[in-house]
Amino acid sequence: MIQKLIDSIERTGAPIVVGLDPKIGFIPERILGKAFEEFGETAEGVAEAFWQFNKEIVDHVYDLVPAVKPQIAMYEQYGIPGLVAFKKTVDYCKEKGLIVIGDIKRGDIGSTSESYAIGHIGSTQVGKNVVTGFNEDIVTVNPYLGSDGVKPFISVCNKEDKGIFVLVKTSNPSSGEFQDREIDGKPLYEIVAEHVEMWGADSMDGSYSNVGAVVGATYPEMGAKLRKIMPHAYILVPGYGAQGGKGEDLKGFFNKDGLGAIINSSRGIIAAWQSDNYSQFEDGMVGEAARAAVIDMHIDIERALSSK
Amino acid sequence: MIQKLIDSIERTGAPIVVGLDPKIGFIPERILGKAFEEFGETAEGVAEAFWQFNKEIVDHVYDLVPAVKPQIAMYEQYGIPGLVAFKKTVDYCKEKGLIVIGDIKRGDIGSTSESYAIGHIGSTQVGKNVVTGFNEDIVTVNPYLGSDGVKPFISVCNKEDKGIFVLVKTSNPSSGEFQDREIDGKPLYEIVAEHVEMWGADSMDGSYSNVGAVVGATYPEMGAKLRKIMPHAYILVPGYGAQGGKGEDLKGFFNKDGLGAIINSSRGIIAAWQSDNYSQFEDGMVGEAARAAVIDMHIDIERALSSK
Repeated sequence: MIQKLIDSIERTGAPIVVGLDPKIGFIPERILGKAFEEFGETAEGVAEAFWQFNKEIVDHVYDLVPAVKPQIAMYEQYGIPGLVAFKKTVDYCKEKGLIVIGDIKRGDIGSTSESYAIGHIGSTQVGKNVVTGFNEDIVTVNPYLGSDGVKPFISVCNKEDKGIFVLVKTSNPSSGEFQDREIDGKPLYEIVAEHVEMWGADSMDGSYSNVGAVVGATYPEMGAKLRKIMPHAYILVPGYGAQGGKGEDLKGFFNKDGLGAIINSSRGIIAAWQSDNYSQFEDGMVGEAARAAVIDMHIDIERALSSK
Repeated sequence: MIQKLIDSIERTGAPIVVGLDPKIGFIPERILGKAFEEFGETAEGVAEAFWQFNKEIVDHVYDLVPAVKPQIAMYEQYGIPGLVAFKKTVDYCKEKGLIVIGDIKRGDIGSTSESYAIGHIGSTQVGKNVVTGFNEDIVTVNPYLGSDGVKPFISVCNKEDKGIFVLVKTSNPSSGEFQDREIDGKPLYEIVAEHVEMWGADSMDGSYSNVGAVVGATYPEMGAKLRKIMPHAYILVPGYGAQGGKGEDLKGFFNKDGLGAIINSSRGIIAAWQSDNYSQFEDGMVGEAARAAVIDMHIDIERALSSK
């Protein structure tokens, strides 16, 4: 799977992931009103609005980027109808040729992690039929339970040509509380990073592994160091834009060949129509503003990488 | 919420949680065949079988125990239909007066954790309506992202009188890989435990906090120590039975008043009908065997506690 992602990155020239993390507040009245008219002010109404909102964004950016990353919590917040919208979004993005990274941050004891892995990137036999759950291409995984919580995901990656990104250092302000604590002179996140590299050896796909890492853009000084600890891991970098990361901060996450990292932006793209930076678009031009924001982000990253 | 749980524990006399973690292999042919006949060999068929299986167990044990703990991964494995069965199970258990602990192990950066919290134990306004997602009473939370990943759950606990159990030391073989690593002379899980106690101070409900901890039964020597570090945290103890824990191992998790811990058993109860220990039941007597297994577990724990 990681080779497919790299091929898509090389085709588009953009190491960019669009985070499809809808919120009611991001959705223009023309979409929201119509959804509420049809389904009422209900979870079903919100789910329909999420789906129409996502579709409009995807239709305007699918040719520019290799991948999208829907954050499942945004959908799970609205229960079953929300998750139906998540699934529709996953399916639609795959139809449009995008790689779908399900930001699910699951992780449990071995047999339970196996169920999550099957439900999100795998399949299972039911009688004579093969059944899939959400069928993303790649998912994010929480490492707190250790190897036996992560390895079932890797088995499924190998069986079905899929990928995972393991949380190493997250982009939130209190991520250091546990992740930065020193163990034998090294912060915990470096020890997790060493495990990512080790786990990844069992799922190589070309020069990189199907086992990647999540490292927040908000910690640029860690980029180069973690790049070295995990030479075969692709790094998914959230926190660009609204969370404060800039193109300049991202250089350390990339290798000299321009590969090795992929940068996520969510609000900066999907809510670009609400931003003063894109006031040239008429109110509610969600897709057009998202496209402009992707192009600007591409330029920002390209400039930073070319000065490397 | 924790006081409601304690009241239920005192009413039943049983600090026992039944883990509703169905698998196809646990379900007798009479239930599975009927579900497949109606819905085909599909995710919908499995979901119907899970629901009927759970219902039979709940109908036979609801008067004996205070709480159930459905593991959402088992349902999520089958996508949307599986999650519909999860939701039906949650609703039915609540109707029967049981407290429902959603074993979801979610955790993310602040605003995303808030969405998970709303989706599982909270509610949100949509226009004029209040919308709930899965509506469990208590959920399990992963602490790897630190305070700002946990606190949104606590805000929702305070607003809606709900609870959380934070993963401190899990029951799986490789839990030690990160959780046991020493930081300033203490294992990471003790540092997480100190945070649990600290977080819990903001959500006291009687003598205990709505913020509890998960500590595996497979590490009995840690029970007493963690009890001391977290005097106000209820401890949810998985790993009894099939994962190897015994009543005798559990003493340290309890306070002198017999409170402070609640023990989960999943396979040992829900698949008791397949065990040699319950061969007196005819094949497929799921509910009757589950009831017998709960009674035996109750005796085992009572014996251990009375010898304390």
